[in-house]
Amino acid sequence: MLLSQIAAALDLQTPVASGDREVHSITSPSRASADDIIFSADPKFDAEVLASAAGFVIVKKGRKFPGKICLEVDDPYLGYARVAQLFEDVAPRFGAGISPAAIIDSSAQVAPSAAIGPGTVIGAGVTIGADTRVGAGCVIEKESTLGSNCRIDSGVIIRYGTSIANRVIIQSGAVIGSDGFGNARNANGAWVRIPAFGNVMIEDDAEIGANTTIDRGNFDDTVIGRGVKLDNLIHIAHNVTVGEHTAMAAQTGISGSTRVGRRVIIAGQAGFVGHIDIGDDSFIGAKAGISKSVEPGAKITGYPARDLMTMRRIEAAQQYLPGLLKEFKQLKKEVELLRAAVTSCGTTGGKGPGTEEQS
Amino acid sequence: MLLSQIAAALDLQTPVASGDREVHSITSPSRASADDIIFSADPKFDAEVLASAAGFVIVKKGRKFPGKICLEVDDPYLGYARVAQLFEDVAPRFGAGISPAAIIDSSAQVAPSAAIGPGTVIGAGVTIGADTRVGAGCVIEKESTLGSNCRIDSGVIIRYGTSIANRVIIQSGAVIGSDGFGNARNANGAWVRIPAFGNVMIEDDAEIGANTTIDRGNFDDTVIGRGVKLDNLIHIAHNVTVGEHTAMAAQTGISGSTRVGRRVIIAGQAGFVGHIDIGDDSFIGAKAGISKSVEPGAKITGYPARDLMTMRRIEAAQQYLPGLLKEFKQLKKEVELLRAAVTSCGTTGGKGPGTEEQS
Amino acid sequence: MLLSQIAAALDLQTPVASGDREVHSITSPSRASADDIIFSADPKFDAEVLASAAGFVIVKKGRKFPGKICLEVDDPYLGYARVAQLFEDVAPRFGAGISPAAIIDSSAQVAPSAAIGPGTVIGAGVTIGADTRVGAGCVIEKESTLGSNCRIDSGVIIRYGTSIANRVIIQSGAVIGSDGFGNARNANGAWVRIPAFGNVMIEDDAEIGANTTIDRGNFDDTVIGRGVKLDNLIHIAHNVTVGEHTAMAAQTGISGSTRVGRRVIIAGQAGFVGHIDIGDDSFIGAKAGISKSVEPGAKITGYPARDLMTMRRIEAAQQYLPGLLKEFKQLKKEVELLRAAVTSCGTTGGKGPGTEEQS
Repeated sequence: MLLSQIAAALDLQTPVASGDREVHSITSPSRASADDIIFSADPKFDAEVLASAAGFVIVKKGRKFPGKICLEVDDPYLGYARVAQLFEDVAPRFGAGISPAAIIDSSAQVAPSAAIGPGTVIGAGVTIGADTRVGAGCVIEKESTLGSNCRIDSGVIIRYGTSIANRVIIQSGAVIGSDGFGNARNANGAWVRIPAFGNVMIEDDAEIGANTTIDRGNFDDTVIGRGVKLDNLIHIAHNVTVGEHTAMAAQTGISGSTRVGRRVIIAGQAGFVGHIDIGDDSFIGAKAGISKSVEPGAKITGYPARDLMTMRRIEAAQQYLPGLLKEFKQLKKEVELLRAAVTSCGTTGGKGPGTEEQS
Repeated sequence: MLLSQIAAALDLQTPVASGDREVHSITSPSRASADDIIFSADPKFDAEVLASAAGFVIVKKGRKFPGKICLEVDDPYLGYARVAQLFEDVAPRFGAGISPAAIIDSSAQVAPSAAIGPGTVIGAGVTIGADTRVGAGCVIEKESTLGSNCRIDSGVIIRYGTSIANRVIIQSGAVIGSDGFGNARNANGAWVRIPAFGNVMIEDDAEIGANTTIDRGNFDDTVIGRGVKLDNLIHIAHNVTVGEHTAMAAQTGISGSTRVGRRVIIAGQAGFVGHIDIGDDSFIGAKAGISKSVEPGAKITGYPARDLMTMRRIEAAQQYLPGLLKEFKQLKKEVELLRAAVTSCGTTGGKGPGTEEQS
Repeated sequence: MLLSQIAAALDLQTPVASGDREVHSITSPSRASADDIIFSADPKFDAEVLASAAGFVIVKKGRKFPGKICLEVDDPYLGYARVAQLFEDVAPRFGAGISPAAIIDSSAQVAPSAAIGPGTVIGAGVTIGADTRVGAGCVIEKESTLGSNCRIDSGVIIRYGTSIANRVIIQSGAVIGSDGFGNARNANGAWVRIPAFGNVMIEDDAEIGANTTIDRGNFDDTVIGRGVKLDNLIHIAHNVTVGEHTAMAAQTGISGSTRVGRRVIIAGQAGFVGHIDIGDDSFIGAKAGISKSVEPGAKITGYPARDLMTMRRIEAAQQYLPGLLKEFKQLKKEVELLRAAVTSCGTTGGKGPGTEEQS
């Protein structure tokens, strides 16, 4: 990769000091050689950056590291992401084109520039767009559509009728379009299954983590919005909608028909009941149990979930509870003794504390 | 679908007013056309039902919506489930019969009416019953048996020796018959694996969600009872037994040898230690951590888990804890001042509060 | 299996009383016949052991069961594990050798003694060591290496560049080497994906549960140490390192770059934030939420996580909180009345309680 290409990806001019040069890879300070580029996003690691052999470093505007070509940007972590994408190997893992060991229905339409790995099964009426790369051992069931430049990793299951837009990434083991968990109970306590007639729609640039499951909608579709990032082992139930640029960490679960807003950040192992609204730009803490709708911009955590600051205060207070119980008992005894003393002291008329009725 | 068929599924006569007619689909009020059927299970949505173009509606006995043919039943939600099943497309997703791209051991016995999708591997001695539909990319290991009318979705892994009865549904990515997590620790702190000799048995009408895992038993079998409904990403450990018609929501985990009763309802992300009994007809709340046996009919939630009403009271009280700590400190100070005042007041003989020994 | 072989596995002499004999299987007391062996690890089950038809029993040193050949060891549960391994059927589930229905890149090197199941896809440059058994429907992507005597169950996905040492077990549906959840946020709130250049390294004797996911590192590798045991549905994020002989129960999640020490025991559904250190020999309770580093040997549970004994005291105290709030209100009222009484009593000069300023 040329330094000029890296600078361009960061909307910078090529540094004059160095002229254009070949940069070998982006890596960590300790692994870097003189022709590698690293990034400095946190002053905590300045010593490591300084000690690194790296010849190039992405830094915050105005920062310098002596002896290194510094590419100054507003957000070095964002700069790292952009430059790393330049170095990424995007060749299909099983080679270009359609593997002879793929099993493709004759009615499927696969773009000539798409790559389909061995052992992958593609059903009737499926369409796959240009430059989309499908790994090995996937199943794409009938009448699903995939746009262009998608990356479907090995072992993904896409069930019938799923719509996937462009530049979507689905990681291994994810299941898209499973049936929702819908059952009615009959008079004997047995469950009667409710079939689903909706589908799953995944919009542009969304990413679905490994072994995550997304259920199809009952009548309307389950929708994963543009740019949404889902980590591994997440459960998205039927008819959930997730707004654009929302991110969820691993093992989170969203129950049926809940609407998650835009740019929401959800930490790991959080859980949401069904049929609630999670406002735009809200933040949900790790392991939170969300049983009510959340206002836009709110920061919520805990179970039952509360405002983050309130929750932190409650959590801090909890450790004093055992001591408080003990001290309270003592104080009660003390007050009783005081009362006895005051009463024996011989208070004047009027209602004394000893005669107070307890509610 | 004829209206008469729908009425029959609901144990009703065909409405006289309309005579028999073709009904196109079951759908939601907003999507419905005049030849569609909808349901009304919650008066909250009456306005939507009224405004819907739907010509037919499943209602609670005694209710009417003007201008619509009303099918009156005791439980409209249950009625919806039954009618939806009539409209379900149950054709195998990869066509009838055995795909030429399936890989089937010559000793396996597959009923002629079964459907086996492409890329599916079936091991030695497997038997598959009539009308069972297996998707693409599944593995059914040796000596497993599947009954009739099962639905095994694409990408399911059924390990050796598993017994699956009739009308069982297993969704994509589920793993049935993995080894349990059994290890003994040696004197050096290293783990010695305990192999499992039991299997998994899944009874009639059970349903297993996407990417759920069910471990085989150590000596006896892990048993999923008749009509049990498991959602996605659930973990069932070795030798667990789940009683009939029990339902578990997503991401719940049950540790080894725990016995879950009949008609138990378990909300999402709950966790259970091993070797306990969960009574029939009990209810376990979302995210509950169950470390002791639960009585039949009990409603339990929280972690540590408690009676639902007790837990709700504790949760409501928690928000007052930080304030209580502050107020307690003040009250203590006040009592001290009172004591000083009373003491200086010159109480008579006897034990005064100032001389009380603190325990 | 000969009794002499069993004795040898337990570092014992063959019992003289019996001489060498054929033992049919290891099983539970209730299932055993006279030629079976059972174990007695917990005196709670002595009655069952006594009542069992089993002819042989693994017991703690010094214990005897009349009428049974007793194999006396320091740790009967460990003895059970060792003997059970003798009886395990380790034949490949789809037969020896390479299935003709496996799809193997011509540049892959598969040891002649390895078994590869049907439908399994093996990419370019993969190497597979002696006696390693790979099930059906697996994908092993390019440049991955597997050592000898591994067991890769059906439906495992091993992504490119993964290093797996010897005697490693990976259960069905596990995904090894998925991309980590790394994203930088741009000025519009959209996420920019951070590609990963590291791999996953799994050391000797580690075991990975069904549907568990292990993400590749960003620059360095994610490392699963020697003898580590991971249960089902666990999430291991990018750049996590897990020290040797650590065990994690199901549905636990470890966030990026966290270092888990050696011989740590982690119960189910625990969660860990990123970039922390979990000390050697520590214990983490079920459902714990760990947001700070943990000292070696510490026992931690709860969320927020605390020392186990502290947490148990807090949990026990919580049930008294609603009552405490009520009683506190009463006591406050009583103190107020006392104060009024004392004030009206006519205290002498000096600052009386009634004039105390409240902070």
